[in-house]
Amino acid sequence: MSSQLGQLFHISTWGESHGGGVGVVIDGCPPGIELTEADIQRDLDRRRPGQSEITTPRHEADACRILSGVFQGKTIGSPISIMVMNQDARPGAYDEMETAFRPSHADFTTQAKFGIRNWQGGGRASARETIGRVAAGAVARKVLETLGLKVEIVAYVKSVHQIEAQVDPATVNSEQVESNIARCPDAEAAARMIDLIKKFRTEGDSAGGVIECIIRGVPPGLGEPVFDKLEADLAKAMLSLPATKGFEIGSGFAGTRLTGSQHNDPFAMEQGRVRTTTNYSGGIQGGISNGEPIFFRVAFKPTPTITRPQQTVTVTGEETQLAARGRHDPCVVPRAVPIVEAMAALVLCDHALRQRGQCGKI
Amino acid sequence: MSSQLGQLFHISTWGESHGGGVGVVIDGCPPGIELTEADIQRDLDRRRPGQSEITTPRHEADACRILSGVFQGKTIGSPISIMVMNQDARPGAYDEMETAFRPSHADFTTQAKFGIRNWQGGGRASARETIGRVAAGAVARKVLETLGLKVEIVAYVKSVHQIEAQVDPATVNSEQVESNIARCPDAEAAARMIDLIKKFRTEGDSAGGVIECIIRGVPPGLGEPVFDKLEADLAKAMLSLPATKGFEIGSGFAGTRLTGSQHNDPFAMEQGRVRTTTNYSGGIQGGISNGEPIFFRVAFKPTPTITRPQQTVTVTGEETQLAARGRHDPCVVPRAVPIVEAMAALVLCDHALRQRGQCGKI
Amino acid sequence: MSSQLGQLFHISTWGESHGGGVGVVIDGCPPGIELTEADIQRDLDRRRPGQSEITTPRHEADACRILSGVFQGKTIGSPISIMVMNQDARPGAYDEMETAFRPSHADFTTQAKFGIRNWQGGGRASARETIGRVAAGAVARKVLETLGLKVEIVAYVKSVHQIEAQVDPATVNSEQVESNIARCPDAEAAARMIDLIKKFRTEGDSAGGVIECIIRGVPPGLGEPVFDKLEADLAKAMLSLPATKGFEIGSGFAGTRLTGSQHNDPFAMEQGRVRTTTNYSGGIQGGISNGEPIFFRVAFKPTPTITRPQQTVTVTGEETQLAARGRHDPCVVPRAVPIVEAMAALVLCDHALRQRGQCGKI
Amino acid sequence: MSSQLGQLFHISTWGESHGGGVGVVIDGCPPGIELTEADIQRDLDRRRPGQSEITTPRHEADACRILSGVFQGKTIGSPISIMVMNQDARPGAYDEMETAFRPSHADFTTQAKFGIRNWQGGGRASARETIGRVAAGAVARKVLETLGLKVEIVAYVKSVHQIEAQVDPATVNSEQVESNIARCPDAEAAARMIDLIKKFRTEGDSAGGVIECIIRGVPPGLGEPVFDKLEADLAKAMLSLPATKGFEIGSGFAGTRLTGSQHNDPFAMEQGRVRTTTNYSGGIQGGISNGEPIFFRVAFKPTPTITRPQQTVTVTGEETQLAARGRHDPCVVPRAVPIVEAMAALVLCDHALRQRGQCGKI
Repeated sequence: MSSQLGQLFHISTWGESHGGGVGVVIDGCPPGIELTEADIQRDLDRRRPGQSEITTPRHEADACRILSGVFQGKTIGSPISIMVMNQDARPGAYDEMETAFRPSHADFTTQAKFGIRNWQGGGRASARETIGRVAAGAVARKVLETLGLKVEIVAYVKSVHQIEAQVDPATVNSEQVESNIARCPDAEAAARMIDLIKKFRTEGDSAGGVIECIIRGVPPGLGEPVFDKLEADLAKAMLSLPATKGFEIGSGFAGTRLTGSQHNDPFAMEQGRVRTTTNYSGGIQGGISNGEPIFFRVAFKPTPTITRPQQTVTVTGEETQLAARGRHDPCVVPRAVPIVEAMAALVLCDHALRQRGQCGKI
Repeated sequence: MSSQLGQLFHISTWGESHGGGVGVVIDGCPPGIELTEADIQRDLDRRRPGQSEITTPRHEADACRILSGVFQGKTIGSPISIMVMNQDARPGAYDEMETAFRPSHADFTTQAKFGIRNWQGGGRASARETIGRVAAGAVARKVLETLGLKVEIVAYVKSVHQIEAQVDPATVNSEQVESNIARCPDAEAAARMIDLIKKFRTEGDSAGGVIECIIRGVPPGLGEPVFDKLEADLAKAMLSLPATKGFEIGSGFAGTRLTGSQHNDPFAMEQGRVRTTTNYSGGIQGGISNGEPIFFRVAFKPTPTITRPQQTVTVTGEETQLAARGRHDPCVVPRAVPIVEAMAALVLCDHALRQRGQCGKI
Repeated sequence: MSSQLGQLFHISTWGESHGGGVGVVIDGCPPGIELTEADIQRDLDRRRPGQSEITTPRHEADACRILSGVFQGKTIGSPISIMVMNQDARPGAYDEMETAFRPSHADFTTQAKFGIRNWQGGGRASARETIGRVAAGAVARKVLETLGLKVEIVAYVKSVHQIEAQVDPATVNSEQVESNIARCPDAEAAARMIDLIKKFRTEGDSAGGVIECIIRGVPPGLGEPVFDKLEADLAKAMLSLPATKGFEIGSGFAGTRLTGSQHNDPFAMEQGRVRTTTNYSGGIQGGISNGEPIFFRVAFKPTPTITRPQQTVTVTGEETQLAARGRHDPCVVPRAVPIVEAMAALVLCDHALRQRGQCGKI
Repeated sequence: MSSQLGQLFHISTWGESHGGGVGVVIDGCPPGIELTEADIQRDLDRRRPGQSEITTPRHEADACRILSGVFQGKTIGSPISIMVMNQDARPGAYDEMETAFRPSHADFTTQAKFGIRNWQGGGRASARETIGRVAAGAVARKVLETLGLKVEIVAYVKSVHQIEAQVDPATVNSEQVESNIARCPDAEAAARMIDLIKKFRTEGDSAGGVIECIIRGVPPGLGEPVFDKLEADLAKAMLSLPATKGFEIGSGFAGTRLTGSQHNDPFAMEQGRVRTTTNYSGGIQGGISNGEPIFFRVAFKPTPTITRPQQTVTVTGEETQLAARGRHDPCVVPRAVPIVEAMAALVLCDHALRQRGQCGKI
């Protein structure tokens, strides 16, 4: 059940990096929602490899096809199967991976778990697996829209390695994010990030970074009181992405250094609505959205695939050295921005439908 | 479905702070495991209120009763129902909560979601809800043990407010953690933490903190490749705890500031076993345990219940002030230590059974 | 996960025949529904042992207690824990069951599955387990009512052994069903059934029978197109009851002997509504309710507990004879009537909430 | 969540009769199982249309393609995506279905539920949806085999309309079943069935029938004590098939006419194994397999698609007449035989993995 997410807006992804293709089946989508392949392609294009000089040169158009669940341009309530064929797979480029485990990759653990693995390009642990997530996330956004929710999800690169961007979460928008290939709305920082990523690539090394995400327009009431708290489901969604090491919402780890009287968000009335005058909570209280902007940060480790030789062992237990060939991103965060947004959309859409199911309104 | 967790070791918790009691039903527990109420009570006692001078004075013995699923001292494979009656409930102490929303609590969002709430003591959002988790966690530990896994889970207070403890994760043990009421293995820091918590209470304020958890003895192979990555399920479990704001595993947010060549964990053979010579990964790679110690940190915000007057609004939308009465912890982290351990045990136990189900061995 | 049912109106039952008690936790109940213990007790009283001269003499008041999820007389959207303590348990009466397997009971299979069992009174396989179902079913009925659905569920005894009642499904009502202890609306047949059941008891034997259930007022649109067809979920719900051997909906097995032109239900307009002029479909087409009355039949085998000596084997594999002591019903169908109704209510309630979640209306 | 089945061996089907294709994603399949497209194609060929003179003339090769989850001929534990493209779709042949509801089909209820439908060929309610089930069932058989279970599943046509076959369940085998196009092991009855089906087709009418299924070699211990009883899950699986109206296991409805002393299955030892000397239970007691052959019957209604004109109404509420064009089977049972077997394999495989997960052995 590794490859499933969501209770009412349920997705099931499939596919390996070097197999027939990758895809997703969405079960439980509301009927009557306008949906075309173009709606999905837009986000896939933001995710796809080869889109800029700082991403992997693997060349995939990642053109999606909707195989079911849509009739005459609208969803019909049945499973939506979306598929992308693999094109530029070069299994030969990974031959040494058959025997040697790449450090800080899933090779060893996959072998330990299943006793077998598709060693060509990382199998299920490849970033190609996220295509299904992004496709489903695009559908989730359409659903939220059709439900009448004006939810705006904006993720962006907050830091790369030790370069931190200055971004005002209150005003940042997608246009700013997409204005450069680093997907960082601070143009000056973005330029430095790009230079640094290129430098690391030249040196056969790689960088990590932090993505921040702000979600505006979520109505009060989404999320559940106990295990399925909205922030818990967001945390799971984000930590399920390859290369992630941390998640924090609102004040996060820094908030632990404040006192209650500093950290509490006072309530006040504003135009007949209950609002908070600060937002240390990050838009969620007791697991349920309070109507304020939701914001969180996700830590991505430096790409483990580097061309420098590294110490490792073989499947048969001999120590050896390995230097990556294969194609890879020297820093994953620019391409991870649309993926973070997709995961956020999936979580919100599921909780919106759950709220409607149990409470009759959203 | 808010109150359920786990796929094979499935728990369902119930109960409000001021109702008949709280409890948990565990479905899917393996048969033949020795289990007594004493096994569970040990952890409940570490969690219960009134245990020390820095916790809430609410007086609850929190004596548990096993109502089903155990016969002649052993589990029989049927649902295990465990219950704790509420005793020292003082609903009158919360009268003002009927009308005014406590800042940074779940009062407003619960009302927004359900249109109704049990305003006595916080209902489901109360820390009493975690009794069911701790009870189930104690059972999960017994299961892991019976499965032959020598898993050792040690959580401890890493920081309170701005006081950070020096702890060696490689050697820290439960005895050290339990040696003081702060549950911080650094005795000097613990003393300062205790003083600070007392000071904040006197001032009508509160503190947050960070809990670190180290898990030794997890075999390679637990966790799933995609959505149910082991770290994703740990993140969800931890962020589902009241008052949490962040989770990081292994190198966490700090790891984003390293390069790949610094951050990758080289593989080496050690006594016939594949090991890593560093552990930035935190014991999990590609969502699956690699046999190294798992460690993670959880951020807890300062307790929102403070006796200083705070700005808020009423159910009917009038601005007002509210100063907490009721009983509460000025800092939740010491009592949260066994809860973090319980959640970790639940996640590991579920993944161990899932591994056995799909792959036939653990 | 044996003890869970439902996706949105989710129940989790627990308890053995001879343990602390039995109960159910309902997760996902809509908030704001008026609910008292009396609402539940009504149905429990129809199910409880000792209610008439043709049921088991075991004496249980089966008084229920709501422990959570209800505040000031209304559901609050959190888990509803309902419990009934066991009172008249006589474990000594079952001593021989420790060693010998009762024929056509769950003793042998439970031992084979779990390697251990609570042999006092049948453990989880006891009819006492259905208390949780009936309690949850009573809540489900309240939910359906509050959702504005005027659903009327009437089950009754259609046959006992070879005595078949004449009942007009179009007009039968609960008052007729409850007018005699056989719960058979055909008074003449009921009298014969009662005599026969008494006769079998005297002879140390037992009888089976068929329960028919008619459900009026289900709107079109409940049920799902593929695996979770409404009839599939009803079939599962009914076959999950102890002692059941068959389920048929609408024309059932007899319908296989008709031709399509005889069996098809023509559509016609009636007062602006799409109706069918016959109802071989039994109110469900393609897994989804069509607005016509739903009706189905459930086969219950003769009670396996009989006082005649029977051939069996012991836990250690020796052949032996066993004659039941313990208390039991010589025919289960009269007491199973409210249980069948409860299961139907649970299935409908779950599908109603699912329909609201996905499609926004019921 | 309509299109999902199974807890550990989880399948998710997709596709409409007239869309891009149909398929299934299997999540949770054990690793290391040899699997080729030929393994799957064998069963698909038994299911496919156009296979004989008594089935629909729709011409589909139904060639399957495995897109993921298999590497170098073995499953790798990741999702297995299997797909069949639609080829001989003739949407034009269904034009009148855009406006008129076919009697006893899912047209009206689908419209009532979703407010929209793919009216070309029945959408999700088409028998083409079962391709995904049959493909997944073929994988399930391989899993059972690899688990060391020598499970033999033999389904066959027991009756067509009023023609009932004489079949000895103890000895019937697949070869006998496949020896004629009626899939009825009683050759004489088969010949009459074939004639009758042809006659009904000529007359523009259709027939129903009963499929019996016998499963040998299931070890004791599969199935769960309460809701997920093995017979309950079989009942749901069978009633989820299009056109089914009833399910009975073991003695079924006829068993209700026996007494307990007649119906109980005495236990006896046989070669060191606990056996029963009769099998009214049908191989399952208390929801759990007892090691005896499992057998059950499934009722299929007469095909609702007939060429005779029938009374119906239009989407806009006008009464009209409709005579089917489109291609269809005058009797579904011969082609439903492999589908019943597939569903049985899916249920058994899921329960086998669940048993291993909870109890550590099968």
